[in-house]
Amino acid sequence: MAVGLSQPENISPVAGIELASHACGIKKNGLDDLLLIRVIDGASCAATFTKNAFCAAPVIIAKKHLAAHTPKALLINSGNANAGTGEQGLKDALQSCAWVADQLECKAEEVLPFSTGVIGESLPMTKLQQGINAAASTMQPDTWLQASHAILTTDTIAKLFTRQFNVDGETVTITGMAKGSGMICPNMATMLSYIATDAKVEQTLLQDILENAVSKSFNAITVDGDTSTNDACVLLATGVSGIGITPKNSEHFVEHLESICIELAQAVVRDGEGATKFVTINVSQAANQEEARNVAYTIAHSPLVKTALTASDPNWGRILAAVGRSEINQLDINKISIYLDDVCIVSNGARDSEYTEEQGQQVMNQEEIGIRVVLERGDAEMTVWTTDLSHEYVTINSEYRT
Amino acid sequence: MAVGLSQPENISPVAGIELASHACGIKKNGLDDLLLIRVIDGASCAATFTKNAFCAAPVIIAKKHLAAHTPKALLINSGNANAGTGEQGLKDALQSCAWVADQLECKAEEVLPFSTGVIGESLPMTKLQQGINAAASTMQPDTWLQASHAILTTDTIAKLFTRQFNVDGETVTITGMAKGSGMICPNMATMLSYIATDAKVEQTLLQDILENAVSKSFNAITVDGDTSTNDACVLLATGVSGIGITPKNSEHFVEHLESICIELAQAVVRDGEGATKFVTINVSQAANQEEARNVAYTIAHSPLVKTALTASDPNWGRILAAVGRSEINQLDINKISIYLDDVCIVSNGARDSEYTEEQGQQVMNQEEIGIRVVLERGDAEMTVWTTDLSHEYVTINSEYRT
Repeated sequence: MAVGLSQPENISPVAGIELASHACGIKKNGLDDLLLIRVIDGASCAATFTKNAFCAAPVIIAKKHLAAHTPKALLINSGNANAGTGEQGLKDALQSCAWVADQLECKAEEVLPFSTGVIGESLPMTKLQQGINAAASTMQPDTWLQASHAILTTDTIAKLFTRQFNVDGETVTITGMAKGSGMICPNMATMLSYIATDAKVEQTLLQDILENAVSKSFNAITVDGDTSTNDACVLLATGVSGIGITPKNSEHFVEHLESICIELAQAVVRDGEGATKFVTINVSQAANQEEARNVAYTIAHSPLVKTALTASDPNWGRILAAVGRSEINQLDINKISIYLDDVCIVSNGARDSEYTEEQGQQVMNQEEIGIRVVLERGDAEMTVWTTDLSHEYVTINSEYRT
Repeated sequence: MAVGLSQPENISPVAGIELASHACGIKKNGLDDLLLIRVIDGASCAATFTKNAFCAAPVIIAKKHLAAHTPKALLINSGNANAGTGEQGLKDALQSCAWVADQLECKAEEVLPFSTGVIGESLPMTKLQQGINAAASTMQPDTWLQASHAILTTDTIAKLFTRQFNVDGETVTITGMAKGSGMICPNMATMLSYIATDAKVEQTLLQDILENAVSKSFNAITVDGDTSTNDACVLLATGVSGIGITPKNSEHFVEHLESICIELAQAVVRDGEGATKFVTINVSQAANQEEARNVAYTIAHSPLVKTALTASDPNWGRILAAVGRSEINQLDINKISIYLDDVCIVSNGARDSEYTEEQGQQVMNQEEIGIRVVLERGDAEMTVWTTDLSHEYVTINSEYRT
């Protein structure tokens, strides 16, 4: 069902990173469900995590470990979220770090654990230990493609992209993967994403750059408005290329990191559960950023807008009603314009006099649709990406555990 | 599909109110789509309206007329919302009031217009005029049942209830109807509802009593989180019984009005688009009312919780994740308990040690389900009512205009 996505190709490995994946039997379908990533000594690491108050055990442990050490390894399992698992969940996450540390000869505190899958069930620890041992003995630098499959759950396609560009005449590589298809709504990194570069970037700068990129990418998407308990986005800078990034020469690095984050985030939406449309919602001339975001997300989360999108129905009244309920202080509806791609459907708060249903229908028939709202209240702007609400979404989520 | 609703019966008319409905051909299915209500001289009237900034033309006119006069008549059409129709919409709403005024010999400003149906299309004025003329010549006091059908759109069943009770030894009657099935989310009266009583109640007191009842009923329901552009709830007190309600003797009146509002509001949810479940979400021990409301609605609007309900899947992790993303300041998840009916599924922030999947399954198999969240932060409480998200919801809303 993924809208406008194809299988990853021409992926460049990142010097200083090794990966191995394994099928432990956590996923019922027998596919790979464990990924181990080893990071070279001297790398730096930035990360963002879910703001869901019920954050999962691995998120709690990963944050703690990251605060104290630069990680040497990342352990990711799919099929089980280790969330809502209380004290046992924390013990299990710590134990899995210890097993990785044994195998890769580092400290347990230098391992970051991540989990994604069903909430509320304990990790199958025997399977996990076997998987860690198997993966640790097969680490390779060029296995990004296989790795990107091991982290998937309800995803239908792997999300993996590469950027290569010059800094001071030398080639820098950024390669990143993401997973996520449902329980997707921005309040931090919203799903799992692992990005690595061979540039050398000091940790504080790396964290700043990552947070900025995440705000324009992973925190600007939604499939269903449900923020996961396990979201995390990690950026590793191995420094192996020897090319240093500083605030002075960071322009290209920032630009390419943003670009890969946006491509990964859009890929999560394009492969959103049941997605048949890829929708870009742009709100401009808002009084401030929060207002622009509020209007964009109210449209993006409206089940009525989403079902109209599924039906390719230019039911612009639903968009207008969503804008109207966005709780914008003293909204003057007579100034508002709404466009479907370049077709003006609403001007001065009412149906545009030139608009014909045929024009709207033409845009809605497309797989990729732009909804643009102009508020005439200021100069703030926000773009978010979302999908439709299809029968397939209901099927997937009413059958997920069965 | 309506959950636990049956056809209205034993409805008492309200002295001082006459009604007539008619099929003008606004609805494509040929059913009644116009309702005219005449109110006796000397009645009082309270009303609440949508807070959607894009409120429809009839809402703008009705608010204006109500501010200046006590209404003598209400005109309601279904099938066309007269929303997003700009200046023409306002002219049409005013014209329809003038036609009613001609027929019933009152001022146009004494008529309140209401519309519900498709957004963005102009009212078919010729049909409307014919319908007004036909209805005006057939007004009767005992046609509430037929009237309650004329206001329906995607509803599958009429919503009409009666209360009779004693005040100072005399019988007071309250009878009310509502429509609404989709675009249902509280931010005022959320759909159309017309309630009448033969008690005599001074306007300011009547408005206070109505607003209080609405906050606990129509403003405590959601089907899909989409607030309509046309919502209105009107309470008419004809005074014909001669029984006066004052702040001193209002206890029974308030209690029965709240009760009928809650029954009407719940009926809207029970007949929610595609509803197969009727769900009561109670959040208690919140720090304040806003917090209780926020948590309750986050659960009620979660597509993942709603699809789990459709599937009768006790996927409590989705409830927990919804609570966690409610943006409650400094939420201590270790204090939270969650129940399905009387079954404790989460205690101290994790799966309850006594909980078994079979217990959860038993509750989820029911048509009526209670979700109860205890926050241990204070003594505020909120109950909201909602439905599941089924294939039928997607079907209805992707085919509504076709």
